[in-house]
Amino acid sequence: MLDPRDWDAFRKLSHATLDDALDYLESVRERPAWQEVPDAVRARLRESLPREPKPLEDVYREFVELILPYGSGNIHPRFFGWAQGAGTPTGALADFLASVMNPNVGGRNHGAIYVERAVIEWFRELFAFPQGSSGVLTVGTSAANLIAVLVARTRLLGPTARETGVGADGGRLVGYASAATHSCVRRAFEISGLGSASLRVLATDSLHRLEPALVARAVSEDRAAGRRPFMLVANAGTVDVGAIDPLDELADVAERENLWYHVDGAFGATAMMSPALAPRLRGIERADSIAFDFHKWLQAPYDAGCLLVRDGELHRDAFASAPNYLTRMPRGLASAQPWFTDFTIDLSRGFRALKVWFTIKENGATKLGAAMEANVRQAKLLGDLVDADSDFELLAPVQLNIVCFRYRRAGLSEDELDRFNDELVIRLQESGEAVTSSTNVGSRRAIRACLLNHRTRDEDLAAMLAALKRIASAMPDGTYGDRT
Amino acid sequence: MLDPRDWDAFRKLSHATLDDALDYLESVRERPAWQEVPDAVRARLRESLPREPKPLEDVYREFVELILPYGSGNIHPRFFGWAQGAGTPTGALADFLASVMNPNVGGRNHGAIYVERAVIEWFRELFAFPQGSSGVLTVGTSAANLIAVLVARTRLLGPTARETGVGADGGRLVGYASAATHSCVRRAFEISGLGSASLRVLATDSLHRLEPALVARAVSEDRAAGRRPFMLVANAGTVDVGAIDPLDELADVAERENLWYHVDGAFGATAMMSPALAPRLRGIERADSIAFDFHKWLQAPYDAGCLLVRDGELHRDAFASAPNYLTRMPRGLASAQPWFTDFTIDLSRGFRALKVWFTIKENGATKLGAAMEANVRQAKLLGDLVDADSDFELLAPVQLNIVCFRYRRAGLSEDELDRFNDELVIRLQESGEAVTSSTNVGSRRAIRACLLNHRTRDEDLAAMLAALKRIASAMPDGTYGDRT
Repeated sequence: MLDPRDWDAFRKLSHATLDDALDYLESVRERPAWQEVPDAVRARLRESLPREPKPLEDVYREFVELILPYGSGNIHPRFFGWAQGAGTPTGALADFLASVMNPNVGGRNHGAIYVERAVIEWFRELFAFPQGSSGVLTVGTSAANLIAVLVARTRLLGPTARETGVGADGGRLVGYASAATHSCVRRAFEISGLGSASLRVLATDSLHRLEPALVARAVSEDRAAGRRPFMLVANAGTVDVGAIDPLDELADVAERENLWYHVDGAFGATAMMSPALAPRLRGIERADSIAFDFHKWLQAPYDAGCLLVRDGELHRDAFASAPNYLTRMPRGLASAQPWFTDFTIDLSRGFRALKVWFTIKENGATKLGAAMEANVRQAKLLGDLVDADSDFELLAPVQLNIVCFRYRRAGLSEDELDRFNDELVIRLQESGEAVTSSTNVGSRRAIRACLLNHRTRDEDLAAMLAALKRIASAMPDGTYGDRT
Repeated sequence: MLDPRDWDAFRKLSHATLDDALDYLESVRERPAWQEVPDAVRARLRESLPREPKPLEDVYREFVELILPYGSGNIHPRFFGWAQGAGTPTGALADFLASVMNPNVGGRNHGAIYVERAVIEWFRELFAFPQGSSGVLTVGTSAANLIAVLVARTRLLGPTARETGVGADGGRLVGYASAATHSCVRRAFEISGLGSASLRVLATDSLHRLEPALVARAVSEDRAAGRRPFMLVANAGTVDVGAIDPLDELADVAERENLWYHVDGAFGATAMMSPALAPRLRGIERADSIAFDFHKWLQAPYDAGCLLVRDGELHRDAFASAPNYLTRMPRGLASAQPWFTDFTIDLSRGFRALKVWFTIKENGATKLGAAMEANVRQAKLLGDLVDADSDFELLAPVQLNIVCFRYRRAGLSEDELDRFNDELVIRLQESGEAVTSSTNVGSRRAIRACLLNHRTRDEDLAAMLAALKRIASAMPDGTYGDRT
């Protein structure tokens, strides 16, 4: 009833759409890295609920006019803002095919289930996880980290805590992570009812890494105070500067202290695909759980993340249930246990495994790893360019693929420099020439360039620095507005 | 670096792929409703991590051979199993375009943000939610229900509970819902640390609806026992039989008892688009929050759900945080507050709003509502056909779009009939002629047909019953295996 009345017309329009989309991707370098959605466009998008049908041609024309020009920048070669993958044409095609098939991958017995299982198996292999380990695809690492906290909670409190709740003081459970840990880990502690106060945030060393000795000391103190240490979260690539915690030494601490050892490797974990980078992740294979994204350094389109769990039984104990209407059958469509919904938050879930399957099949781990190595080399190159230019100052050593630096101007106080650099980042974005983000390094504001983009060429880095210099030189001294 | 080396070749393959996909959709009626993935195909999908690149043509050929034929059935006109939408070609095209643009819709200032806001605004209008209410798209209603529980928890315990945790006995919080409520609500209580014991499960009336008087009585008892009633969950379309709780009367109870009033309308809430069905949802506009899916009765491809919250400030209080690397700026790409990540679990999120935008723009609420009315009429028709046939027995009155019935055979005990009907459902699926699911109605097993499919024609219902009769008549008496 909602299918095209005229399939030929739909087919014609789809082919035109496809050509437009491929033109758009092929010419991305020629367009601004970002441009603001004009007020008039925003106003046109704010219409009341459409009541009557409208020809698809007209809807598509509105899309081309009101939406398509206003991307978030991350598909552009000179996008260095935040840790966002650039996507690929193959990934988009795979998402189309996934939506054509349109399965609910919560469970049951159909092809998409076996594709998601295959993808998980590949990453079990990559991280040398044993038989009996489990995995599930998620929207992203935020949800994967949350699931890890829930499984770790189940390990200490037992599955009955699903019924009884976490109890007084969140069962007095305590987790550990460095100050450089992503905020979604704190959010996971909030959501799970343990409370963020149950996440002990520990200072980092000068390279933004968690120090194993600090963890051991905090655990002792907490045990002495009657609390129950249960989880250690390590970073494989911190969000601010790309630091990798000493994963192997932290694994020792976790083992000694009987803590659930979780690695948040949102973008960094997949660097295991590069033989050159993998040694820096040594110890990740000892984790009890690993969270990571496909839509970051693996360049799958948004959204797709993953959690792997060493103890698959425990993972299932944290979620599984079998209501009447989800009865499992020995044969037929309702067979093929276990179901993914036994391992995650969602009971309905899309076929996000397909874009991962296509991406990895087409490129192979070798080529994907090489693309990551190129970004790491580019980050080093950018660091060198910054270092060699007296207008700039590096604010943190380049460890992986992130460069934190700032523009210098004599006569400005540190606070004024902070505001100047924030304003500079905004003006760079507004120029459309490139996109970086802003962050803090220590007490100072930084221009943050994250190299996570397979479309970036070396000359894009110099172009970005030149744009920054030109824009900055046109900025008068004076105080720039506070960030909101 | 991961883009096509030869764009023309990619373009050619994409067009061929598009034609294959449209052929697949246009001819869906001619294929089996479901077929099992053969062992040999599953074995081929279990390969080790691909290391080297492979031509996309070859990958695509594997997809066509190993994956495409093995859908989960829900796009087929004779799929009546579970509450799954059938998708549309337009939805798939929109998903392709979303992945081409590939934005992270966690926040910032770009087109996808305004599309998601527009979609939310449409549903605020549909449910007559006030200015100041908020909304966010999710994977599905499971996550939306979880977020609702977290907001309701925040209302009673205050935002400081994010830090301190839920406390002893889950703060002694108690929520209320009927026994017909979906298991994901219980799961939300588990995840949030309140514990499923904090969800009081109340008996239903003969039509599977929650009785307001029972809620009021339970609240009194809990208050007398020193517990803290905080949330009432009502159903707009129960999963087993499609019952709609008395939403307006329950709103009175919630108001009187100062409970957060949440409506789980996973598939049913969107029936507000039908003028004929909307009156049955009277009272839904009084909810504090409403959860529903786009991938069910609105036929958007998987996955997309939504939560609307009356008090947008409280919604934000339950999630918002602003770490350094997510600093909000007054202008540029990092502007446009609030960000969606301030209202949900995930910090990275895909552009699932686009398929909803296309679906609603193309069809309009009127046509989408008419498609739902057609399903309700078909359910009534199927109920009549079942009633008129002595081989079948209706197990629950047809209230909305779900028909629960069973095949009868003289001489079998009730337990034997349960197993016989479970086996019959499996054999129907295996035949490929149609798909139904199984569930319990009271203490008996039922064949459950859920009419949620815009491709279904009236004659498909008779065809399904005829297939059941033919398959059943070939089944000897005797005891069939237990379900797993």
